[in-house]
Amino acid sequence: MAVKSWLSIAPDSDFSLANLPFGIISTSINRSPRPAVAIGNYAFDLATFSMEGSFDRELSVNAIVFQQTTLNAFAAMGRPFHRKVRQYLQSILAEDTSHIFKSDKSLQERILIPLSDVENHLPMDIGDYTDFFAGRNHAFNAGVLFRGPQNALQPNYHHLPVAYHGRSSSIVVSGTKINRPRGQALVDPKAEVKFPEFRPCKVLDFELELGMFLCQGNQMGSPIDVKAAQDHIFGYVLLNDWSARDIQAWEYVPLGPFTAKNFATTISPWVVLADAMEPFGAAGIVNDIEVQSYLRENKSDWALDIMLEVDLTLSDGTTSTITKTNARNLMWSFPQMIAHHTITGCPLRPGDLFGSGTISGTEQGSLGSLLEMTQGGKQSFKLADGKERKYLQDGDSVSLRGRAGKTGAYVGFGKCTGTILPAHS
Amino acid sequence: MAVKSWLSIAPDSDFSLANLPFGIISTSINRSPRPAVAIGNYAFDLATFSMEGSFDRELSVNAIVFQQTTLNAFAAMGRPFHRKVRQYLQSILAEDTSHIFKSDKSLQERILIPLSDVENHLPMDIGDYTDFFAGRNHAFNAGVLFRGPQNALQPNYHHLPVAYHGRSSSIVVSGTKINRPRGQALVDPKAEVKFPEFRPCKVLDFELELGMFLCQGNQMGSPIDVKAAQDHIFGYVLLNDWSARDIQAWEYVPLGPFTAKNFATTISPWVVLADAMEPFGAAGIVNDIEVQSYLRENKSDWALDIMLEVDLTLSDGTTSTITKTNARNLMWSFPQMIAHHTITGCPLRPGDLFGSGTISGTEQGSLGSLLEMTQGGKQSFKLADGKERKYLQDGDSVSLRGRAGKTGAYVGFGKCTGTILPAHS
Repeated sequence: MAVKSWLSIAPDSDFSLANLPFGIISTSINRSPRPAVAIGNYAFDLATFSMEGSFDRELSVNAIVFQQTTLNAFAAMGRPFHRKVRQYLQSILAEDTSHIFKSDKSLQERILIPLSDVENHLPMDIGDYTDFFAGRNHAFNAGVLFRGPQNALQPNYHHLPVAYHGRSSSIVVSGTKINRPRGQALVDPKAEVKFPEFRPCKVLDFELELGMFLCQGNQMGSPIDVKAAQDHIFGYVLLNDWSARDIQAWEYVPLGPFTAKNFATTISPWVVLADAMEPFGAAGIVNDIEVQSYLRENKSDWALDIMLEVDLTLSDGTTSTITKTNARNLMWSFPQMIAHHTITGCPLRPGDLFGSGTISGTEQGSLGSLLEMTQGGKQSFKLADGKERKYLQDGDSVSLRGRAGKTGAYVGFGKCTGTILPAHS
Repeated sequence: MAVKSWLSIAPDSDFSLANLPFGIISTSINRSPRPAVAIGNYAFDLATFSMEGSFDRELSVNAIVFQQTTLNAFAAMGRPFHRKVRQYLQSILAEDTSHIFKSDKSLQERILIPLSDVENHLPMDIGDYTDFFAGRNHAFNAGVLFRGPQNALQPNYHHLPVAYHGRSSSIVVSGTKINRPRGQALVDPKAEVKFPEFRPCKVLDFELELGMFLCQGNQMGSPIDVKAAQDHIFGYVLLNDWSARDIQAWEYVPLGPFTAKNFATTISPWVVLADAMEPFGAAGIVNDIEVQSYLRENKSDWALDIMLEVDLTLSDGTTSTITKTNARNLMWSFPQMIAHHTITGCPLRPGDLFGSGTISGTEQGSLGSLLEMTQGGKQSFKLADGKERKYLQDGDSVSLRGRAGKTGAYVGFGKCTGTILPAHS
């Protein structure tokens, strides 16, 4: 896959020729949101490229999907079509291409837009968003804090991929600023008589997750077979499930998290296609029980070997990498999540989004949330310059980063960033 | 409001001149889904009416909202516009009208379609669906079954309207048949070691709820004030939150209901406008604590005096009315739900749907779910012909009905019906 491009691409770029992730962009000159792929330091404008008739005949027939403001129509075409488009783009960007694009500087100028000139938009119109809980290390760590190590994981945890429905209207693209939420939280969580106050959240957290977009759905009443579920995966993004822990602790019994989560969820702008991730299958966390047949995949390399990092940048500009881990720290695969989500008959639609659940490793410095890093607020953690921190303060920026592969052929996501603004008065 | 119409309307019709609910219809002659209002035994075709230029000049300017396949554009115009359209339609249907529609039989034939010839569609494109838990009697009854009477209601119950995010892709219009879900449930719920099996749901239930559609939303980060929240209410429907209790009991800890609810939610097809319900304000269940200021409405008649009934029809055609209650059995108002939903900054959008939570009374025969009627499956209840029943069987139909007002001026919903089909193999 480490084919060289005639375009100059830095060896450490997330957007190598082996990647070609899809997104929605606009520019100051052309404000219409439109599809593009990221390659090196450029966005390759698919709307303009297809309008100029530069696709081959087979792809031109369906090029209308690149004249849309979201990727839903493209996604709905299915994985064989995504594969053809990606392979075609790889071929014309490869060093040995005979395509006119390599020599036509004027065409290049119209198609290749520096990423620094591009505004990213949400890649999909997201019908429904579901957040899973497949990161067993996180589920265990959080369970220990709430219930002690003996009862950390609930009896259902190893039998089914636990999840809750999230809020699709507050999913925003990387770079969108987030107001600190105000809400109800307990005056004294340890008091016997529970009494809440209304205040800005004091325990604001991030959660490092992988997001997965669906390309094709299912009819209501007809579950998706776990062995066919890969065909329903459009691609992946990074996902930050911002969490107001003090609000969550008070509200979440008995129906689950609500306002503690629904104020914002940030995703990275470029969708890495399922095909681009296929070479990076790896072992995940082994589930030690035999699951029900509808969840049996019989694959050992169902997880994705994606290196993940979290940077915390303070308002003074200093940045600390506070987490390094890997997406292999999940116990359920996306095909299993798809099979379980649809098992009672729930229909999925193109553009639906799944969150994996928080990804935490077991080594020092590999935790995917501040809840875990601070042991529920009991201890601080050190930043690069010796400062200490527990939870997020106004002005903090959290950036998730992630990539698979190696130098010269990285398949990465770019950044998934959000900055905390003060609470509205 | 009991103005007479020149149209013949049965005195017990849900769709009196005092109502005029909005929906989306199609017919065998014109298969395009389009807006209509229900009046007596007719659907009044708003698409055709507006295309023929029959609205007055002020309304004609915006008549494009009636050339859509959903009511979202109409809803987004806001309550003053809904009021004008409804009043205009009431005026031309009133006995003393001078509008040409009263005398033009040919126009009437094009506009007034017998309801029996009409197919109803989902009235709105539903972005996000949230199900609340505002029926305190139901919350208490369910809590007693799960935790005993001392801890029936959680400490947060009286402080905030508890809710969870639901699934919008599986919301269907009345008449849609529902396959019995298959999923994971415990072999023996009382065994110490919890072990699940995969099977068709054995404990299938309905929930009697009121649904509320939003007409206008809010910007992310800017909560809606409880005192302005009425302006965001488009109107109401009946809602059946089908529930697989055995699947729910196993899966719902710690993140709430998921596959036990997301297989189907049925709503009635006609949206009764907020204006049409305004005369029926009444006292609800009194909350005996002082809530946080953002939830304080200072209104005693915030509930809706809507008579509600549930019919169970068996596959042999026999029908029993198994529940009679009133929508006053809620402890939180829709404006309070809106204020709470947005308090941490969550954006709402036109077409979003809220469920009230199950509505149960305190009298004999007034319970809104089979869970409550059977005391968690411990006892049967009697049907009209002396038969007994616990939970839903294949072939059963559940119909919710509801209306406010009195003979000759009912403001009703029509039926919200679903029939259970066997589980897919």
